[in-house]
Amino acid sequence: MGSGIGRNLLRNGHEVVVYSRSLDRARAIACAGKGRATDRREDLAHGDALFTCLARPQHVEAGMLGEGGLYALMKPGSVHVECSTIGPDLADKLAGAAKARGIGYVQATLGKTPAMAEKAEEPIFVGGEPEAVKKAWPLLEQVGKPENVGGASASCAIKLISNLIGMTNIVVLGEGLRIGRAAGMDMRQLLKLLADTGAHSFQMDARGPSICDRAYEPARFALTLALKDVALGADMAHGWKVPVPLFDKVRELFARGVEQGLSDADCAAVAEVLDK
Amino acid sequence: MGSGIGRNLLRNGHEVVVYSRSLDRARAIACAGKGRATDRREDLAHGDALFTCLARPQHVEAGMLGEGGLYALMKPGSVHVECSTIGPDLADKLAGAAKARGIGYVQATLGKTPAMAEKAEEPIFVGGEPEAVKKAWPLLEQVGKPENVGGASASCAIKLISNLIGMTNIVVLGEGLRIGRAAGMDMRQLLKLLADTGAHSFQMDARGPSICDRAYEPARFALTLALKDVALGADMAHGWKVPVPLFDKVRELFARGVEQGLSDADCAAVAEVLDK
Repeated sequence: MGSGIGRNLLRNGHEVVVYSRSLDRARAIACAGKGRATDRREDLAHGDALFTCLARPQHVEAGMLGEGGLYALMKPGSVHVECSTIGPDLADKLAGAAKARGIGYVQATLGKTPAMAEKAEEPIFVGGEPEAVKKAWPLLEQVGKPENVGGASASCAIKLISNLIGMTNIVVLGEGLRIGRAAGMDMRQLLKLLADTGAHSFQMDARGPSICDRAYEPARFALTLALKDVALGADMAHGWKVPVPLFDKVRELFARGVEQGLSDADCAAVAEVLDK
Repeated sequence: MGSGIGRNLLRNGHEVVVYSRSLDRARAIACAGKGRATDRREDLAHGDALFTCLARPQHVEAGMLGEGGLYALMKPGSVHVECSTIGPDLADKLAGAAKARGIGYVQATLGKTPAMAEKAEEPIFVGGEPEAVKKAWPLLEQVGKPENVGGASASCAIKLISNLIGMTNIVVLGEGLRIGRAAGMDMRQLLKLLADTGAHSFQMDARGPSICDRAYEPARFALTLALKDVALGADMAHGWKVPVPLFDKVRELFARGVEQGLSDADCAAVAEVLDK
């Protein structure tokens, strides 16, 4: 997701410092337009806006907070646009720490796929204090389709709800297709017929063929990251005292998938995980 | 579903005897073309083809089998086109009883909505012995879009898998939206945003607005019938030794919905059913 966002900013003529732990990966993005690659995190502290899009909440927390964190180095009046899938608690914590340093905090979770981000058509769920959102908005319009959803925690919640539903629909599809396989059906015919019924879903199109063919490499979204998102989402629901029996069950199945060595497979491999 | 099929046969110039327990309902269908309405079941026994589309498996069984059943009255060489959502065991039993009387048996489950049936665009999953399927095919092409799926039990299985997935996707959507409601989000904005993410599904379009507005009347598909289908589907899976933990859970939730007096509400009302 981050590479698409970076390239969109470069295409729009901005000076962009691109950070990755791998300098080669940073260079592959920064090579277009006024880009500069770095593998030193502190090089990110000097801009008017900092975008982060990281795989895990602990990476965001470690990168921003505490003594070595970027908030200690960023200039007052700048804005942090945080695009990762994190929980609302962490978003609130980051927003508070940023504010204490005079930095604006905008949560800008991303609704769809890297391909959409690349085309600057990514739906972006934007939350934060109005002044910070106003600063970030022109940039967000250059990298995707921003929609103001209110607060930072609403931005996190929408993204997590989206992933809870999407990842659970994969498990549901997997259960259904498993019945067809047991009955000896032609799996691709079954999938084609189901696509024109009330069983249709985004995930049926995106991952139905993988499940039919039992082919889960290369991963488009790794099973271990799906577990991370489902766990964050279920924890959020529990924190708000919302019962989510199916999401709890699905979290168990993804966790069992990790135990069974499927971490790096595409999340659709959850269809291979059997109940105890 | 049955009325759309009946009207399509009439539009195509066939002589059709339309049966309903309510004579008025039968007349409302039979009034077009060469139609005749009846509330006497035995009037159905004299045609070249008999279509049945009934709410529950026990209605099909009682209508066809045993001493008062239609198989005892139908002429050898005729064909029974059974369109109801029933389990594969009953389909096999009916097919065997029909064959013993020289009657062809075709299972022709219906993939989508009454509106599609009305336009003769209903996907039809057709299974049965080749000779019977051949006889029924020209009629099936006049009432919808038939696809040959092999045996009668495959036809039942595809329909049940479709409904298992579809009904479960409703529960999944309901869990997700429930989190948003607890967080005080604008429910219609949340739904609109989710529709452009990996959470999208047929059921999100069809029933998301109902769940947002908590409005479940009038029923497009009654919760009690959804329970019937989910139970038939889960029983089928268990019979074939296929583990379906989510479908089992969803069956419990629909059953609890019936206990809570939601039988006649639309199946989307399952979103209001809380875990124990």
